Amino acid sequence: MKRYLLAPGPTPIPPEVLQAMALPIIHHRTPEYEALFAEVRQNLRRLFQCGNEVLIFAASGTGAMEGAVVNTLSPGDPVIVLRAGRFGERWAQICEAFGVQVVPVDAPYGKSVDPASVAAALTQHPACKAVFATHSETSTGAVHDIRAIAGLTREAGALLIVDAITSLGVMDLPMDAWGVDIVVAGSQKALMLPPGLAFAALSDRAWARVPEARLPKFYFNFAKERKAIEKNQSAYTPAVSLVVGLRESLRLILAEGLPNVFARHAWLARATRAGVTALGLTLFAEHPGAACTAVHAPAGIDGGAVVKGMRRRGITIAGGQGSMKGEMFRIAHMGYADEFDVLTALGALELTLADLGYPVRFGEGLCAAELALREESAAGETAGVRG
Amino acid sequence: MKRYLLAPGPTPIPPEVLQAMALPIIHHRTPEYEALFAEVRQNLRRLFQCGNEVLIFAASGTGAMEGAVVNTLSPGDPVIVLRAGRFGERWAQICEAFGVQVVPVDAPYGKSVDPASVAAALTQHPACKAVFATHSETSTGAVHDIRAIAGLTREAGALLIVDAITSLGVMDLPMDAWGVDIVVAGSQKALMLPPGLAFAALSDRAWARVPEARLPKFYFNFAKERKAIEKNQSAYTPAVSLVVGLRESLRLILAEGLPNVFARHAWLARATRAGVTALGLTLFAEHPGAACTAVHAPAGIDGGAVVKGMRRRGITIAGGQGSMKGEMFRIAHMGYADEFDVLTALGALELTLADLGYPVRFGEGLCAAELALREESAAGETAGVRG
Repeated sequence: MKRYLLAPGPTPIPPEVLQAMALPIIHHRTPEYEALFAEVRQNLRRLFQCGNEVLIFAASGTGAMEGAVVNTLSPGDPVIVLRAGRFGERWAQICEAFGVQVVPVDAPYGKSVDPASVAAALTQHPACKAVFATHSETSTGAVHDIRAIAGLTREAGALLIVDAITSLGVMDLPMDAWGVDIVVAGSQKALMLPPGLAFAALSDRAWARVPEARLPKFYFNFAKERKAIEKNQSAYTPAVSLVVGLRESLRLILAEGLPNVFARHAWLARATRAGVTALGLTLFAEHPGAACTAVHAPAGIDGGAVVKGMRRRGITIAGGQGSMKGEMFRIAHMGYADEFDVLTALGALELTLADLGYPVRFGEGLCAAELALREESAAGETAGVRG
Repeated sequence: MKRYLLAPGPTPIPPEVLQAMALPIIHHRTPEYEALFAEVRQNLRRLFQCGNEVLIFAASGTGAMEGAVVNTLSPGDPVIVLRAGRFGERWAQICEAFGVQVVPVDAPYGKSVDPASVAAALTQHPACKAVFATHSETSTGAVHDIRAIAGLTREAGALLIVDAITSLGVMDLPMDAWGVDIVVAGSQKALMLPPGLAFAALSDRAWARVPEARLPKFYFNFAKERKAIEKNQSAYTPAVSLVVGLRESLRLILAEGLPNVFARHAWLARATRAGVTALGLTLFAEHPGAACTAVHAPAGIDGGAVVKGMRRRGITIAGGQGSMKGEMFRIAHMGYADEFDVLTALGALELTLADLGYPVRFGEGLCAAELALREESAAGETAGVRG
């Protein structure tokens, strides 16, 4: 059976990247690896829109999230954590595991936290050292207004630490320009790589906090890693094959051009949303991001049954996590994705929903998506969107 | 230029494994991945010679070392750390980073810690909760007598926590039979995979310590990982492509058979030692292990120059680390290695040493290695050694 991976990570890997990773492995303490790493460092800074080094860890994204906590804070420090989904909750869980005092600012699943609530929390808790946010909340499909929040944290003197695991390379996040202090990302999303690399980029303001942070750390020691990276090395053995793949995927992303990459993701997201709403379905997120489209399961149909039905056709999408299980399903359009992936997803969705007894007018979702894709193709072509 | 990777990690990857990892990536929350993972779990237990689950982390080996510390200890706990090289020192650094009190038991680089010193330390410090040891000290090529040390820790009621990063799948380490409490390993050594997976297996005695261990942890939380692994999942996104490769490499190792794998490594190590000593060189380790052969650089010749000279011929070996830099070089014969790799290393070494002004009688190292290989081939064939 031909297979299509349309879940929010891991995402499909371009053949050029798979091929590079399939070459015999090289040793990391060699001039060859160091030259490769020098290119990767430079291109990562372009992707992160960041003047400082981007640190690379052999870990999944959660590892770099832990690193952001333990390298900037001390036991008992108060922090604000935005929670509106499973990944916002993860920030709080990490902070609590390390004895950091969490002031939650919550929004219901599907909503985004209002920047005004963040402003109020900062006023009420002026001692807060940092605000933890999720740019793209993968569990609900919602996007948070990082730019507005960055304005607030800058003024309040708190660090803004952002999980950009499913937003980096999907939506614009110019960290230096906006004043974001730490951006954390992972390899298996828009970077079009297997899971196993985690990234963290720090502003000067964040680096200034590192020497005074007293939480214990060893593997995710940012200062040690920066020292190594400046010599084109890693503190511990790097995930060599993934770094080899990273060189290729960064080349692909930068050859397409960041503005075009963002425009393509927005375009695919709009077409997907047009398709699912034409089928009479409703979106889960009030402010949906461009990484994945979360959709309420229709009344009487289990979201998990949609996922399973799609799987029988060779299509992998994702269901709901935690208490959202059964309530929804999520279609990703992230990384190595194009307009025909959107049509594939919607076609499979129409067939699957019909099997489950939902009244589908066949082609309606496909047609709406196609029209959305076409309507914007002129703009897309002007912007140089790959197509 | 044709390239040969003969350094102690990363080691060469068999084509079957490279090929499996080059297939389109699969999603980890699928029945397909869970079936694969179930096989991996079972085969890992065979490799570790352990009845309990082997935990898998997306990390380099150091990550699992950190996990072994933070999941079994509390702040201020006293522990004994055997230090006779860079990796023994790493155990102490991790313990110190987390506020664990280190009682060092040292031996000079190249020596192995005498079990009698461990016995004395245990008597002198009866409150010590654990003993940290290095089975194969990769930085010096020395092996430690884990079996003898396990007898002591069992009696003293302390955990024995062993870095087996370059010994697992190289030398016999039956953890249950010997009474080792935690074995830590990594993917890029005898497991014949790229770096990026770290492993930890715990005895019942070690698991009993986990609930009371108060050091903070999140990413390397063993209890959480065990709960996930029992459902053929991981707590956080696993390094899917490396796990896919792991299935293949475990199949290769178990098809060869563990006793044969150990015999092959011992055979290659003896031939390498015969070769270098026939050239008038001396071994760095008093009790050398089977993973890599560390050799003193001859008087007047820099070990780094040997590494560079080999590299010019396409051969990657390793130099000395830390204060051993320049003093030695290290030739690995670990993982996907056979007798012709030994001859390649020795041939390149003869040519390189001659270039550097060392009085080489060409063929002498090669001849000694060949004789050693031949002498033992009858025994090897009986034991079913791959050849």
